[in-house]
Amino acid sequence: MSHVNLSHILAAAERIKAYVHHTPVLQSRTLNELCGCDLVFKCENLQKVGAFKFRGAMNALLSLTKAEKKQGVATHSSGNHAAGVAYAAKLLQIPAYIVMPKTAPETKKQAVAYYGGQITFCEPTIEAREQTLAHVTKQTGAIFIPPYNDERIIAGQGTAALELLQQTPHLDIVMTPVGGGGLLSGTAISVKEQNSTLKVIAAEPALADDAYRSFYSNQLLPPNPSVTIADGLRTGLGEITFAIIRRHVDAIMLCSETAIKQAMLLIWQHLKIVIEPSAAVPLAVILENKPFFANRRMGIILTGGNLDLAKFIL
Amino acid sequence: MSHVNLSHILAAAERIKAYVHHTPVLQSRTLNELCGCDLVFKCENLQKVGAFKFRGAMNALLSLTKAEKKQGVATHSSGNHAAGVAYAAKLLQIPAYIVMPKTAPETKKQAVAYYGGQITFCEPTIEAREQTLAHVTKQTGAIFIPPYNDERIIAGQGTAALELLQQTPHLDIVMTPVGGGGLLSGTAISVKEQNSTLKVIAAEPALADDAYRSFYSNQLLPPNPSVTIADGLRTGLGEITFAIIRRHVDAIMLCSETAIKQAMLLIWQHLKIVIEPSAAVPLAVILENKPFFANRRMGIILTGGNLDLAKFIL
Repeated sequence: MSHVNLSHILAAAERIKAYVHHTPVLQSRTLNELCGCDLVFKCENLQKVGAFKFRGAMNALLSLTKAEKKQGVATHSSGNHAAGVAYAAKLLQIPAYIVMPKTAPETKKQAVAYYGGQITFCEPTIEAREQTLAHVTKQTGAIFIPPYNDERIIAGQGTAALELLQQTPHLDIVMTPVGGGGLLSGTAISVKEQNSTLKVIAAEPALADDAYRSFYSNQLLPPNPSVTIADGLRTGLGEITFAIIRRHVDAIMLCSETAIKQAMLLIWQHLKIVIEPSAAVPLAVILENKPFFANRRMGIILTGGNLDLAKFIL
Repeated sequence: MSHVNLSHILAAAERIKAYVHHTPVLQSRTLNELCGCDLVFKCENLQKVGAFKFRGAMNALLSLTKAEKKQGVATHSSGNHAAGVAYAAKLLQIPAYIVMPKTAPETKKQAVAYYGGQITFCEPTIEAREQTLAHVTKQTGAIFIPPYNDERIIAGQGTAALELLQQTPHLDIVMTPVGGGGLLSGTAISVKEQNSTLKVIAAEPALADDAYRSFYSNQLLPPNPSVTIADGLRTGLGEITFAIIRRHVDAIMLCSETAIKQAMLLIWQHLKIVIEPSAAVPLAVILENKPFFANRRMGIILTGGNLDLAKFIL
């Protein structure tokens, strides 16, 4: 059972303060009119390494003992957590060993290499990731920094919602996408322990609906192999994140791939910022459920901005 | 001869303050390393209507008399000035009549319509624009708000550099792209009248090099028909802007279309913001002239973020 609460998130915020960006919130009148609600976007795509993942990674690495730091750190990730751990390790002068599925976006691979992470590629399955990681940690003695199912990670990710609520006091609903559930569970604790009347809703691609199925069946179900364009959301929940999500999250809603692409384009067009497909999933859910969100004041965490632009651009 | 000086720009800044965004400046370590200099980007793509043009338009419209406001305003523009005038007119509840070349990007046409501008389309030549505008002003009695060759417009555009210098005190060089020269001449006055040792350099696509040829031949030359991807920079200088540019600008430098696309992609990728091709032209010049800019502290005005994303994205 998890013991993460608001005090851990406040402590994490203090711990990582000197290292992270206090990211801005943006709004667009056109998007509000289009969606029929009031949208405030928390821009974690403008966070260091281009994603909220840096918050959790930095918090986890700053929580290590001196002896543990010497051993170095290791993780497996499709990209943003990998970049977060690699960059946090670079800042603290710790070696970082990163296991990445070979199908990860080129941009994310390059970022990890740029931050000095030592990459081992593996097949794009959770089994291959875990086996390869076990091999790497055995060889190097490095300490595993889990991508989401970890209290230090959850507390770090919860700091984004902490800032959002300070920046935008009068929200009705806070939304994040859900993959492994690190951001969602940290957000849910941040929000509910400050104001239990505020709703927390998660958004998930219908093509990767394991969190949705787990949440509504009350049992932790594994993800099916998924080809959703939202590459950050293909992983399943962990036991810790699932327990927090069951307790604190009000709903999980699904969206189509078409809506994800449309939402991504709308945010690029109207907010003039680059987000990755995973970050567009909450707006995609809103676009497909306008009556449900009518006139509500929505806080949305834009999770990241890393994608292979060369693939998207002529 | 123009009489625009720093006091006009300071007055414009005061006049438009309540209407414009004080846009942020962004930096990227990766871009700095790639270019070998220190780059500070002033994000006018995040300005209202997605471009610096709103500053000049707002200043011009706020400078009208009550009687003039009643007559309404008219202009011709390939896009951002049109959107700026339409939106400024909407805020002041003035009718706006906009002449646009039918080849303007769809996004820019839609923006003008969205802001309530009444559009008349014309052929994409300066003659067609001027003839159509003459027809429209004759019919409506509306007052012409020139896109750049106008002291109120120049003073308004100069407010962006005013902010940039406040936000970033220790620059060596300020760069803007040059089309009609409104932003460049306003910037040059802002910069040189505050600190004459600071250099002002303009960037222009080699495919639209009329400002470059005019500047170095000391005579105002018309633009050739141009197909540069930087659609905002196809116009020629005006007499007022040319006089200011000759007096205050240190150099005009050219770049290739390939470098413009590369620079645009780099900014999208590393700053996580959407800019239009015209806005990428200064970085394109830097990429093609790295030794010239080595180790300099560069302030770059990112002019706008309006482009047909659907054309660029799969």
